[in-house]
Amino acid sequence: MALEKNVLRMNAGDGESSYAKNSRFQKASLLRSSKLLEDSTNEYGINAFPQCFSLADLGCSSGPNSLLAVTTIIANVRALCREKDIPAPEFQVFLNDLPDNDFNTIFKTLKPSYSSSPVNGKGDALGDDCFVAGVPGSFYTRLFPSRSLHFVHSSNSVHWLSQVPVNLEKNGENIFIAKASPPGICEAYSDQYTRDFSTFLRLRSHEITTNGRMVLTFQGRSSADPSDSSCCILYEMLAKSLQDMSKQGFISAADICSFNIPFYSPTTDEVKAIIETEGSFHIEELQSYKNDIEIQATNRDTLCRIMAKQIRAINEPMLIAHFGNTFMDELFEQYAKELNEHLSKERIEHLDIVISLTRKSD
Amino acid sequence: MALEKNVLRMNAGDGESSYAKNSRFQKASLLRSSKLLEDSTNEYGINAFPQCFSLADLGCSSGPNSLLAVTTIIANVRALCREKDIPAPEFQVFLNDLPDNDFNTIFKTLKPSYSSSPVNGKGDALGDDCFVAGVPGSFYTRLFPSRSLHFVHSSNSVHWLSQVPVNLEKNGENIFIAKASPPGICEAYSDQYTRDFSTFLRLRSHEITTNGRMVLTFQGRSSADPSDSSCCILYEMLAKSLQDMSKQGFISAADICSFNIPFYSPTTDEVKAIIETEGSFHIEELQSYKNDIEIQATNRDTLCRIMAKQIRAINEPMLIAHFGNTFMDELFEQYAKELNEHLSKERIEHLDIVISLTRKSD
Repeated sequence: MALEKNVLRMNAGDGESSYAKNSRFQKASLLRSSKLLEDSTNEYGINAFPQCFSLADLGCSSGPNSLLAVTTIIANVRALCREKDIPAPEFQVFLNDLPDNDFNTIFKTLKPSYSSSPVNGKGDALGDDCFVAGVPGSFYTRLFPSRSLHFVHSSNSVHWLSQVPVNLEKNGENIFIAKASPPGICEAYSDQYTRDFSTFLRLRSHEITTNGRMVLTFQGRSSADPSDSSCCILYEMLAKSLQDMSKQGFISAADICSFNIPFYSPTTDEVKAIIETEGSFHIEELQSYKNDIEIQATNRDTLCRIMAKQIRAINEPMLIAHFGNTFMDELFEQYAKELNEHLSKERIEHLDIVISLTRKSD
Repeated sequence: MALEKNVLRMNAGDGESSYAKNSRFQKASLLRSSKLLEDSTNEYGINAFPQCFSLADLGCSSGPNSLLAVTTIIANVRALCREKDIPAPEFQVFLNDLPDNDFNTIFKTLKPSYSSSPVNGKGDALGDDCFVAGVPGSFYTRLFPSRSLHFVHSSNSVHWLSQVPVNLEKNGENIFIAKASPPGICEAYSDQYTRDFSTFLRLRSHEITTNGRMVLTFQGRSSADPSDSSCCILYEMLAKSLQDMSKQGFISAADICSFNIPFYSPTTDEVKAIIETEGSFHIEELQSYKNDIEIQATNRDTLCRIMAKQIRAINEPMLIAHFGNTFMDELFEQYAKELNEHLSKERIEHLDIVISLTRKSD
């Protein structure tokens, strides 16, 4: 089943449940990758930057993180040019996400419409020689002309699959790979991921110039077992919460059985193997970081409320498209409780993978 | 007074009062310029098109017209390439409008998000080798990197000024140049237009490649007198309708006195003079067409309702920003009456100017 157009996107606007207000963990992983981002731009510019440095952020979403990587890259390039005493290039920045992403909100915060002078922090950071465009579309399709990009960045996006894997009928009331998933489910997910990530690399290889760079940050897993608790627990708890909604009569068990999350967290070995098999990119650097959710807050109640809001901001459009919009408050209240109970017994750890790639010459 | 960010834009969405549903006259003028658009692209391609043909539509708005010029240009280029038996280029299309334009609505209608195959008329028209981006910003600022565009198109947009002209205090309850305007008002408008259109040309000259083309369609006037009825009557009737609202107690006369429309319709001579003085572009063609509004519908009542909706779709955000949102239905009911009365006595004629320009070499 291909995903519906309006399903896989973050919650829009800037309200209480919006992604814009609930994306601080994503910000943390973005900030953690900034050193590698800096190294990567610096290496790109060892000889010289082109007259116009063209960069894309894939899966930019809408909110305070949308411009974070872009402003970091641009600041790096400018600093390097100052250091080498050469003129900085112009910048063409493409912010990409699915067509249902809230581009209007991003565009309104970019810069004042009737003046080319920067008047606020964002304007300052981007500057007059930086030209921003929004590009609607899935990064599992071509998005840019051939060999038109010098730098591609994507954070917290390529762990989303192009579609829910096929052959998940036996997954029952699990909504993702789970300890209780029968044989074949893990394979269905990993096959879909291999196809999708290969497609992603192949499409980008057409769009990126020779020696162009790509830095990707996404969720991975440290265990060889895809049903290991560290990578499944958040969705196992969401499945449990949905089952609770079913007991309360909001939905049927059959509704849950036909719902699965189009997400996959690979190991670093899987990622390396796909990149090498696809063959267009050279791996400059591959790093992974363990994120211990427990240590990010001292107060567990507060942490659970924040986490539940984050999971809601990311998954709510998908949930509403499948189950309707009648019990989201109850669902995520239950989710916060499940989370609290779990965290009273054990920590939740997940892995961030960061890779820096160079486009090989043909 | 610089225009507020959220004021000069068409009504969003696709509801009853939206620009999307009320832009058939704009479509008519777009269609009329399509021959010149075709000639212009063909001439551009006399030698060969670049590997990626980069085109921008400035003031694309949101609705069925947003992609009309772009699809026309692309179809022309493809037809020419077939005729000459050379491969068609890839296309990079930039749709520009102010940051408050409804880009989300355009993006959602572009093409399916999870397939690169065209599935509807629009997808068909654009095709897989056509990459669309939205560019938020005023065309009175730089929008694109230096020498990055091959073709620029703008329809029904460059008659909008960057701001309400200064020194309009004496214009009283007129909201635009009017027969009753005192001396100095016409000059304030034409000075602002000269500055704005010169700025527009200068900025585009940085962005367009040598020999790159630009086709602009906008409202002009046939009379040397800027207060001639043909170019002022629509806003004179809006002023009258506002005065009626003042009599009914919705607003004060002072509210009307501080409101003026940032619009100007030049003569062809004015346009030529500005282009020649600015100096970056060579005029390939300058055409003008008289639009007789009366003959566009057989039933005057229907015509007046349509016209009032069109004027509302274009001006409502500006009116609401100044007067508030309490009497728009009443205002445009009154406007339709004024229009009906006027059309019972005389026709309304306005002028469309279409120019085709080539960027000179430095």
